[in-house]
Amino acid sequence: MLIGKIVGTVVSTHKTESLEGLKLYVVKNIGADGKDASGYVVAADSVGSGVGEVVLYATGSSARQTSVTDNRPVDAIIMGVIDTWDIEGDTIYTKDESAETADE
Amino acid sequence: MLIGKIVGTVVSTHKTESLEGLKLYVVKNIGADGKDASGYVVAADSVGSGVGEVVLYATGSSARQTSVTDNRPVDAIIMGVIDTWDIEGDTIYTKDESAETADE
Amino acid sequence: MLIGKIVGTVVSTHKTESLEGLKLYVVKNIGADGKDASGYVVAADSVGSGVGEVVLYATGSSARQTSVTDNRPVDAIIMGVIDTWDIEGDTIYTKDESAETADE
Amino acid sequence: MLIGKIVGTVVSTHKTESLEGLKLYVVKNIGADGKDASGYVVAADSVGSGVGEVVLYATGSSARQTSVTDNRPVDAIIMGVIDTWDIEGDTIYTKDESAETADE
Amino acid sequence: MLIGKIVGTVVSTHKTESLEGLKLYVVKNIGADGKDASGYVVAADSVGSGVGEVVLYATGSSARQTSVTDNRPVDAIIMGVIDTWDIEGDTIYTKDESAETADE
Repeated sequence: MLIGKIVGTVVSTHKTESLEGLKLYVVKNIGADGKDASGYVVAADSVGSGVGEVVLYATGSSARQTSVTDNRPVDAIIMGVIDTWDIEGDTIYTKDESAETADE
Repeated sequence: MLIGKIVGTVVSTHKTESLEGLKLYVVKNIGADGKDASGYVVAADSVGSGVGEVVLYATGSSARQTSVTDNRPVDAIIMGVIDTWDIEGDTIYTKDESAETADE
Repeated sequence: MLIGKIVGTVVSTHKTESLEGLKLYVVKNIGADGKDASGYVVAADSVGSGVGEVVLYATGSSARQTSVTDNRPVDAIIMGVIDTWDIEGDTIYTKDESAETADE
Repeated sequence: MLIGKIVGTVVSTHKTESLEGLKLYVVKNIGADGKDASGYVVAADSVGSGVGEVVLYATGSSARQTSVTDNRPVDAIIMGVIDTWDIEGDTIYTKDESAETADE
Repeated sequence: MLIGKIVGTVVSTHKTESLEGLKLYVVKNIGADGKDASGYVVAADSVGSGVGEVVLYATGSSARQTSVTDNRPVDAIIMGVIDTWDIEGDTIYTKDESAETADE
């Protein structure tokens, strides 16, 4: 899995049937040091996450191991909103508890 | 999934039987910022997309999770034409509604 | 899928049983612009292609979706000889029709 | 598989149900020469490893081939704590036997 | 598949049960030109290969398609010792027939 920040949304009305109902986010990679890293992915959401949140995402066939992505042509899934992570004893990131999460 | 632009077509008459009937496009990668990125992929089409369109594609085993690619040796699939995407509140791309889509 | 050129062959007599009978080629990557790109792969052949041909290959689990690679530890498969491809209206490559294909 | 060092932990309370109970570590890549390499991964733990340990991890669908990750959306798994490895006759790394392993 | 040279061994006693009995090698990548390339992988052995040999390895789910790796969390497998390969008519590598292979 990798850490990323949800920075935007992708809208596609003309799509394969099995993608119906999935929320698609643009997720920019974040390094283990908490800084922006190169690369992005468009990931489906399985946890009701929202723009601005720092999340954990998985890629490949593992992205289909959730009830919302089972048997769908999805190769990237957001499966957790990150509360905090640390590196060698230092807290790299802590979620702003005052922020709202978009549960849909 | 990643965002790309369909820039061309690939023709192969001497191919493995299970590829018969698939439309194969050359898709150039586009960054989250809407600019051309390095790399390309040859992807099968599952939605009747056409050259010039900006699309969403998936890779790996997930590319076989559509009715047109099931059990075929395909590792990249176009599964949506993108209408629009935004990053941090800015609209990065909006599909030109006057453009025609090649539904075949 | 990616485009590559078959540049050589690999011979292995001491190998896992399930690889018996597979033809293994060295395939160098070609960019969408038709120029040599970095990287190579050793791919199994499913279409009777030969050295010098420009081909389409797939990687990962999709490489096992042909009758010759089913249930084998193969992660790259040549599944089509390319006749031609174009980018933004320009023909990038056309197969030399006078060339012979090694059907074995 | 690749070699990495567990450098931190990731906490996510708002996550997909099937991730419940998994320990998630930040693993920084180590080169075959034993030096820090670029890149990291967030991997699930299957062996009761702990921060500071040098481990072996697998990615992709193979990460689901353990009892703790079966059918879960996990694409990276720690499946062994490394005792030692050598390159061309030189011992590159030997685990400090006095260190404690967090078996949980 | 890719070509690599077995340069060392990895020892892990504290590991997930399903890895028991597998021989794990450090394999350094070799370019199609026969020169050292960047990157390495830790691969399981399925053919009784030994340190110093030049081998073919597969990654991803294909690495589980051998009797020794079936259903195991292994994402890289050595499945052939290379005798020789050629590029554009030139022999790049030929195995030293006087060398011993470690059949275990």
